[in-house]
Amino acid sequence: MHIHYPAPGIEHEIPVRSGVAFNLRAGETLTVIDPLGCQVSDLLAFSAADTREYISSGRTLDYASRIFLTVPDPLYSNRSNILLRITADTVRRHDFLLTPCSKDTFRIIYGDEAPHRGCFGNFVEALAPYGIEEDAIPVAFNCFMNVVVDGQTGELRVDPPLSKAGDYISFVAETDLVVGLTACSALQSNGGSFKPIRYRVQQQEGAVERAE
Amino acid sequence: MHIHYPAPGIEHEIPVRSGVAFNLRAGETLTVIDPLGCQVSDLLAFSAADTREYISSGRTLDYASRIFLTVPDPLYSNRSNILLRITADTVRRHDFLLTPCSKDTFRIIYGDEAPHRGCFGNFVEALAPYGIEEDAIPVAFNCFMNVVVDGQTGELRVDPPLSKAGDYISFVAETDLVVGLTACSALQSNGGSFKPIRYRVQQQEGAVERAE
Repeated sequence: MHIHYPAPGIEHEIPVRSGVAFNLRAGETLTVIDPLGCQVSDLLAFSAADTREYISSGRTLDYASRIFLTVPDPLYSNRSNILLRITADTVRRHDFLLTPCSKDTFRIIYGDEAPHRGCFGNFVEALAPYGIEEDAIPVAFNCFMNVVVDGQTGELRVDPPLSKAGDYISFVAETDLVVGLTACSALQSNGGSFKPIRYRVQQQEGAVERAE
Repeated sequence: MHIHYPAPGIEHEIPVRSGVAFNLRAGETLTVIDPLGCQVSDLLAFSAADTREYISSGRTLDYASRIFLTVPDPLYSNRSNILLRITADTVRRHDFLLTPCSKDTFRIIYGDEAPHRGCFGNFVEALAPYGIEEDAIPVAFNCFMNVVVDGQTGELRVDPPLSKAGDYISFVAETDLVVGLTACSALQSNGGSFKPIRYRVQQQEGAVERAE
């Protein structure tokens, strides 16, 4: 099994329209930063002990009785274990309804003839070394993604993120994880331009808040 | 691989708090009937050719740009293929956000000390002969489930179904499928009492509508 722990305490950059995967230990805090503002980052998490266990939108939203999550909401797995817990959040609007953008997204929604592989394709490449197959990629927690839902008609609309330069969301890992993280590839999700994403891992819970 | 085609043209009953699985051929129409009214039925579908392909809430809602689905909406797979298409619907309010109820649902939301296995446990047993494992059970399309979402706060509430006795929803299969179907086990979803569900398979598209 592939293992990669990002160097702790420093900001790592995910270039525009790309993605990474890495390990996160139980107790470590992952902070996802929008360095320029108005950019989405799709996040996946799998139990490192058994990657058939993954974050579940359906379980998490059910237990939260809310579609918008923020501090101190947990992200539950398909086995109803807590994988991550939101510990800091300067934006308070994220999405947990929609799948990562993919060549199919760009073909079906945008009508692109030579579609980019999207966050989905970036996840496929980044997660392959961890033995996670394409079909095992679930609905992601989409940091900063601003999906507006009309409760009457059920219509949903993807608006530009509310995040400003330097805004962030932090999660503490409740168990050892494999994490996938992207700088989102869909124009509509990011207010019309592609931007990088940064992330930082802190080895001790609470270290992020103290450093701010 | 286990194969079971329900006898066509007749109504099969799923007893209270239980579930079934069966094969559905491309072109066949499945009608899910609420015989007494105010009862939910969770539906899953997997490609029979490769059960790693399954209905995806995230892809379907993204492509529909709507959380409430009805005629003629398709249900997309995690590979962005259409597995089912809604062809008739006398209720027009179903859910595709929440996972099947499970012992964890009853433990976390209801506080039950000896929780029922729920639709999730019923799916696990019914789908096992088809080689579909517990961890491969995704968010279900929850027929007649009435999840009300507040677009401002994001809060969601499970209200009693709008279905009356005899109401139904029909789907045509776009490819050969393994289908899982339950009579839902959660009191909150079903207006406070458990009731059976019925279903019928018609071998030719459009046959259901002509028979009504």
